[in-house]
Amino acid sequence: MEMALDRILGADTVAGETERPARLVAAMRHAALGGGKRLRPVLMRETARAYGRDDGGVLIAAAALECIHCYSLVHDDLPAMDDDDMRRGRPTVHKAYDEATAILAGDALLTLAFDLIASDTVHAEAAVRLRLSRDLARAAGLGGMAGGQMLDLESEHRQRSEAEIRTLQAMKTGALIRYATRSGAILAGASDEDVARMTRFGELVGLAFQLADDLLDVQGDAAILGKAAGKDAAAGKATLVALKGVDWTRRTLDELVREADGLLASLGARAEVLSAIARYVADRSA
Amino acid sequence: MEMALDRILGADTVAGETERPARLVAAMRHAALGGGKRLRPVLMRETARAYGRDDGGVLIAAAALECIHCYSLVHDDLPAMDDDDMRRGRPTVHKAYDEATAILAGDALLTLAFDLIASDTVHAEAAVRLRLSRDLARAAGLGGMAGGQMLDLESEHRQRSEAEIRTLQAMKTGALIRYATRSGAILAGASDEDVARMTRFGELVGLAFQLADDLLDVQGDAAILGKAAGKDAAAGKATLVALKGVDWTRRTLDELVREADGLLASLGARAEVLSAIARYVADRSA
Repeated sequence: MEMALDRILGADTVAGETERPARLVAAMRHAALGGGKRLRPVLMRETARAYGRDDGGVLIAAAALECIHCYSLVHDDLPAMDDDDMRRGRPTVHKAYDEATAILAGDALLTLAFDLIASDTVHAEAAVRLRLSRDLARAAGLGGMAGGQMLDLESEHRQRSEAEIRTLQAMKTGALIRYATRSGAILAGASDEDVARMTRFGELVGLAFQLADDLLDVQGDAAILGKAAGKDAAAGKATLVALKGVDWTRRTLDELVREADGLLASLGARAEVLSAIARYVADRSA
Repeated sequence: MEMALDRILGADTVAGETERPARLVAAMRHAALGGGKRLRPVLMRETARAYGRDDGGVLIAAAALECIHCYSLVHDDLPAMDDDDMRRGRPTVHKAYDEATAILAGDALLTLAFDLIASDTVHAEAAVRLRLSRDLARAAGLGGMAGGQMLDLESEHRQRSEAEIRTLQAMKTGALIRYATRSGAILAGASDEDVARMTRFGELVGLAFQLADDLLDVQGDAAILGKAAGKDAAAGKATLVALKGVDWTRRTLDELVREADGLLASLGARAEVLSAIARYVADRSA
């Protein structure tokens, strides 16, 4: 992923581009290179691999997804949003550059995703590439990730019901993770049944990811996490951990991993990595 | 366009969306509805019409393009960028709502464009829709509009050569206008030669638009323009008018309109509206 993004975010223009301003390229590279767990691209690639596809085209689709994720971090970190100075132990883009550059770098990463997903190598059929592009827009936009961030901002210092929190999280973090596994299966030409199965697998991983994240926020150590622990609680953000408690959360995490593993059963040994990822996401301490 | 955007920016979700947060929908509507010259969608639709296509699918593609334009205005108006409080005689999105909501509304409009352009009705062939989507990403992104905005921010309080200004403007305002006429021809199934012709027509209109805008900024009346006149000059932004003078600018505008009209000759009466638009763009006083 690192090498692919490094190549994609080069100085050279592609057809239809006029020039790539050096400062904007640098800010985009700051946002997209140098770390991160790469959870979404790894899930997409491992799902495609489990169904028999593993080539450069999948890598490009995974890079598109990661561009969306990275843009969302850049904008979320802005002073008007979560106001974070550090990310992955480095200054956030608006600290390393400035706010205007960070806004534009986020915009350009978001836009670049829809260039990448349209690449010929992603899938032989244009109709499939177009479907992946449209699905990505819906997972990332008004009714997905961006909408979820809106709900999250609105939920500060306000009580939310369990159902409201679940909707918020399904949109803010769930939608892209779901897209990762679903699209991995589509890219590999999996049957409709298998696509549905891997869509559900992605939903479960997304739920586990969010619960583990909320748990970390309550219990985490700032040094491990690289951001201020307890920050969500301080901002009064609604989480299921706050609502239902730590014990319920740990139990639910176990159940999610079990259900996820059950979905992978038919894949046998081909799903070993996916199974390990689900476990890692639920157990992670950073 | 107004009716199409009103319908698109409704409260109801489409497949793949979870929920549309009311506040985000409202901010997107504030940004996209209620005014604007609609230059880009009008150019796209009139070009398609000149080549024999005029239906709801073209309208959707035009709405996608307008979403990109509107997102760029929302982000450009932010305090960290041009810091404008008013737009079209109304408060800008971050004044009517708040900065975080404005950032998200821009992000969501940008994302929505790539949902819309993928719509079945836009063109019968998925490959053509995909091409339009990828071209839109390149016109709007790092090597197009967003990159142009980066160059523009960098050019404040700094001398720029004529070539640098031309590149900046070709990216910041030129790329989307060029896309409008080029895509209009592609949507209508025009020949490669005609697509090239209308691409050049769009470039000329884009140049005229920018020159007329710069001229207005020097001479304009704040009441007519609805934004503070002389603002670019005050920010020390590089323009061709500042570099080459008002007389040169007027002469060049005449030449651009003449060349544009020449390109339309083969279309005869079918190009009457396009010809009028080119003239309007060059002559406009608001």
